[in-house]
Amino acid sequence: MNTLEIPANGTEGRKSEDSHVDVLIIGAGPTGLMSALWLAEYNLKVRIIDQRGTRALNGKADGLHVRSLEIWESFGLGDIFANNCVPFSQWALWAPNSEGRLSRQKEEPAIGTTGSKFSCGTMHQGNIEATFIDAIKSRSGVQVERGVMPTSIAVDENQVDDPNEYAVKVDLRCVNEAELNTWDVNAHSVQKDGSIKVERGSIDASVVRTDGSDTIPTISGVPGSTETVHAKYVIGADGAHSWVRRQFGFQMEGASHNAQWGVIDVVLNTDFPDFKKHCYILSSVGTVLSVPRENNLTRLYIQLPGSDQDVSPVTGIATAQHMMDSAARIIAPYRLSYSYCDWWTVYKVGQRVSNHFESHQRVFLGGDAVHTHTPKGGQGMNVSVQDAYNLGWKLGGVLKAQLHPSILSTYESERRPIAQLLIDIDTVLAGNLSKREHHATLDVNSVYDKLRDFNSGANICYPPSQLVAPPPQKAPRINLPLGMRIPPFPLVNLASGLPVDLQSLFRSTGQWRLLVFAGDVTNVEQRSRVNALGAALSRKLTAPHSFKAGMPLLEPLLVAWARAQSIELADFDEVFFPLDERTGHDYGRIFVDPPEGREGGRGVSAHVAFEVSVGGGCMMLVRPDQCISWVGGLGDVEGLHGFLGGVFLGVE
Amino acid sequence: MNTLEIPANGTEGRKSEDSHVDVLIIGAGPTGLMSALWLAEYNLKVRIIDQRGTRALNGKADGLHVRSLEIWESFGLGDIFANNCVPFSQWALWAPNSEGRLSRQKEEPAIGTTGSKFSCGTMHQGNIEATFIDAIKSRSGVQVERGVMPTSIAVDENQVDDPNEYAVKVDLRCVNEAELNTWDVNAHSVQKDGSIKVERGSIDASVVRTDGSDTIPTISGVPGSTETVHAKYVIGADGAHSWVRRQFGFQMEGASHNAQWGVIDVVLNTDFPDFKKHCYILSSVGTVLSVPRENNLTRLYIQLPGSDQDVSPVTGIATAQHMMDSAARIIAPYRLSYSYCDWWTVYKVGQRVSNHFESHQRVFLGGDAVHTHTPKGGQGMNVSVQDAYNLGWKLGGVLKAQLHPSILSTYESERRPIAQLLIDIDTVLAGNLSKREHHATLDVNSVYDKLRDFNSGANICYPPSQLVAPPPQKAPRINLPLGMRIPPFPLVNLASGLPVDLQSLFRSTGQWRLLVFAGDVTNVEQRSRVNALGAALSRKLTAPHSFKAGMPLLEPLLVAWARAQSIELADFDEVFFPLDERTGHDYGRIFVDPPEGREGGRGVSAHVAFEVSVGGGCMMLVRPDQCISWVGGLGDVEGLHGFLGGVFLGVE
Repeated sequence: MNTLEIPANGTEGRKSEDSHVDVLIIGAGPTGLMSALWLAEYNLKVRIIDQRGTRALNGKADGLHVRSLEIWESFGLGDIFANNCVPFSQWALWAPNSEGRLSRQKEEPAIGTTGSKFSCGTMHQGNIEATFIDAIKSRSGVQVERGVMPTSIAVDENQVDDPNEYAVKVDLRCVNEAELNTWDVNAHSVQKDGSIKVERGSIDASVVRTDGSDTIPTISGVPGSTETVHAKYVIGADGAHSWVRRQFGFQMEGASHNAQWGVIDVVLNTDFPDFKKHCYILSSVGTVLSVPRENNLTRLYIQLPGSDQDVSPVTGIATAQHMMDSAARIIAPYRLSYSYCDWWTVYKVGQRVSNHFESHQRVFLGGDAVHTHTPKGGQGMNVSVQDAYNLGWKLGGVLKAQLHPSILSTYESERRPIAQLLIDIDTVLAGNLSKREHHATLDVNSVYDKLRDFNSGANICYPPSQLVAPPPQKAPRINLPLGMRIPPFPLVNLASGLPVDLQSLFRSTGQWRLLVFAGDVTNVEQRSRVNALGAALSRKLTAPHSFKAGMPLLEPLLVAWARAQSIELADFDEVFFPLDERTGHDYGRIFVDPPEGREGGRGVSAHVAFEVSVGGGCMMLVRPDQCISWVGGLGDVEGLHGFLGGVFLGVE
Repeated sequence: MNTLEIPANGTEGRKSEDSHVDVLIIGAGPTGLMSALWLAEYNLKVRIIDQRGTRALNGKADGLHVRSLEIWESFGLGDIFANNCVPFSQWALWAPNSEGRLSRQKEEPAIGTTGSKFSCGTMHQGNIEATFIDAIKSRSGVQVERGVMPTSIAVDENQVDDPNEYAVKVDLRCVNEAELNTWDVNAHSVQKDGSIKVERGSIDASVVRTDGSDTIPTISGVPGSTETVHAKYVIGADGAHSWVRRQFGFQMEGASHNAQWGVIDVVLNTDFPDFKKHCYILSSVGTVLSVPRENNLTRLYIQLPGSDQDVSPVTGIATAQHMMDSAARIIAPYRLSYSYCDWWTVYKVGQRVSNHFESHQRVFLGGDAVHTHTPKGGQGMNVSVQDAYNLGWKLGGVLKAQLHPSILSTYESERRPIAQLLIDIDTVLAGNLSKREHHATLDVNSVYDKLRDFNSGANICYPPSQLVAPPPQKAPRINLPLGMRIPPFPLVNLASGLPVDLQSLFRSTGQWRLLVFAGDVTNVEQRSRVNALGAALSRKLTAPHSFKAGMPLLEPLLVAWARAQSIELADFDEVFFPLDERTGHDYGRIFVDPPEGREGGRGVSAHVAFEVSVGGGCMMLVRPDQCISWVGGLGDVEGLHGFLGGVFLGVE
């Protein structure tokens, strides 16, 4: 095959300025920004460009799921998102009762019992982006280059086998002011006399920042100027109409639905009691889904009548009023009117997945560029961000020559099935919501259960690969599946006595962790086994400074099935309690898992919950993205080294 | 009495520039900044000056108590402080056992069972100040004017009775560069060969900000220039050597102790297991107190031998080493050495309280300016910030003509006894810690219990006054004392089903709240009583816009003893569920208190815990500073109006 060269328009007047980067990110929505955030942990040369002149200024993707919040928590951003989003914890299903009157059929938690400290929530996409932008800037200084578009992309196949080569060539052009994409703002209020007043909308709804930066259209360079970027890797995060995807000729596969839905953010006057919960409202004349938003807004998804004829999103405010009339009919006998609309649109989206997620393991696509679906599950942004969470550390580790470049093939093999799973759920849900039959209530209920597990991360499980061992054929068999994210669980730090969440130990630093479930260490023999493991762990892997200052590439963590009063730090091998002359002892590796469980926990210990034998223990290798990679007995150092040898560079 | 005029030096070359402000704050430590934060809620003209050129650049006050964190939470800053401090939850008491070997005698929670979501913690004072500075700037735009000192202050007695008069005249002068106070930095590391290397210290330990502003010495104006400020009120928050206090001739009363203590922040090499807890270590050769700090530092307070001779804090690094030698002797047989010292000093502080806290109810002093004590309880900054928390809303309410100016007399009557109480505890503690006898362990233990209640706010209770009603002579008698802060308690928002903390409803907005414990509202008669109260509440007091946009001066809140499934919003009077045409319904006033309690709660409902009759209910008036002000039966609207008439302007 020859070098892939895809010329495109707009390259006239190109200058000969060439630059070299480790990673070029095309698109600065949540997917691209999440990628940049991850890569900021690795001290690499990264650029991120976007054709638009500002961050998002209207609605779009706004639902935050528990798993996304947990991921952001691992970057130290969990509280910023959690405190600035509008949380919701309850899901209510409304449908006609036996007398035909709309009534609450069911109410249950919007998330499963995952033990997460987070609730689901909603947050203006502009605020999501602003939070990322600030975090990236403070870590690496990288800023989004706005008003910059790619005009051609080419992968040099002769270079793709050498990870040090800048194998991807991308031509960029600064747009002219007239080309600068802007955001449609269609806010309006309804006056007392029924007249409509056009409003500015909450484009600066930023509770995160007050300076308004990234809301003023900007072109980062001389309009019309061009340059050539040579990148080791490219991330295409340029949305549903992805230019990158089209350059490589990837096909979106799947079905398109005819049902047409309106989406609208409104301040309501209503006696319907549940708009601060997440509602599915199924009546005989249609369906409304609702979710609470900032500034006392409610987001409504409204199934529009006459779905076979198009209702254009640009036919003006009458369309918004038409949507709200439909909603009012569905929600009757409750009253429903609105005084202010922040944003609205009409959509008819199919459920599709791209046939490829990458090219030559040099160009990777993520987010809407490779999967689209209806917004009803509030999934889009979350799955997209999680694409980037899966990819970032793999690229970082390869670029830092820590990990075998071959691991990059797992991006597509892990993320494409997840996109397909989501779309399968979404297709069933969309179908059920469009049904007029009464049994639809039951169908919706069962689909919602699946969606809920998906949102918490509890049913996302990557298949066996170079990075996920197959299920062990013999002991230890525990009930944490390989390929799943490590769950939240309350523990106690031995040195401080402070409560600690298990998952919070797995911060996104690029480190792998060896989680040692040490069992009952008050038993002398069991403690000897644990300390023998400690002594056998490769000092090369666990020593500080091998990766970042003070951070080993493999960090050992120990969870002892014991009360804090019954053991002391001095009971354990120093690999679990190392001393650095400059920074002192590391007290952050030994935790107790009290046999009686922790207050606020599940009333059982982690050993019991995860079915780890307290007489045997086990060790669990966890990837930088909190995914469980390998499990073995405390004595299986050989097995551990064998697995790591296939992943880490320089491990025999 | 004539006008009080206290000329001072440094007024030559004064210009005739005069300016007028509502409040001038002298001193930009935690007390002054907390005052500015409160006043920023009121949209007033405020200035804050400090003689130093930067924020705090070394150790000093660093202990954060639960009550302070709760207060900051009420300003939306709780998580910033909590996430950036080093938390500790355990207190360990070490003393020789019967064989004379140092051993852990006791370990218990460092805070009582207050139900607070916060732990105690430590945080560099510079970071505390930076957090305030950022919050004030984003609210009101006010910035600290640095390198500015007062040179004279005078209160015009002819004007003090009219709250609109600028009755305080203060002359200010910008210092010259040579006069600019700086912070002593005495960091050093111990090299492997035992030699000492001077270090920069963690002056920019700011995890809060990375821009380094407020760490570079600044003079806000032309050096040597002067001006006259006419202020309605002045807050003197200028520290232990308060210039303001001296101008008014107030006396610090109390005892001075001879015992001399060293304080040092160090990275340790030790096998002592409890330095991530808060420790009291009492040996036969002296006493060490410890608390964990940022960057793996440990703060040690070390009782120095030969206490009758002075060990000057400026005799150089040998003193630090001498202190650490003492600590090592006390902590034997455990090893103790240090590789890095961030800051150290030696102190001999008395326990004293100023005989006055204010002059003419126009000049108010707070913080170290009016109370000093040993730092061992980690109290200083907390009590100081709480002075400002008590004062700010009173000044704001008077300046906004909402509240009777006479309430300002309660600042001294409420805060002076607290300072005295603290000092009483501190005196006993300091004495017990200096004892050599074995029974000191028991004495220390009992004092620590008192200190702990103090830290959680649970034994801070203001006496009856214009702002705190005397205990009711008849029903309802509940077990929340008048004058105490409203405690944390888990509830559920009726509209959203989200868990909510009772205390978190009392945000620091300047609003008063009427907390209605509605009892068993599934009982029709009880619900009628609640809704009769709703109808009787003055619409003037509870309507939006009377105070700030959307915020009534008196906000009604309702807590129903019921399961969420058993009641609906529509069951209640609209004062608890108001509709604003522009912003929609307020869903944030009705909460349920499930009879079986809440997960994570005390296993009982708030009605039961607070001993509120579920058949009767009660109403509770809560001040803007979360202090319970008045309690009455649901029918006692007259009593409520009577009390408010003595506090609110314009209420009959």
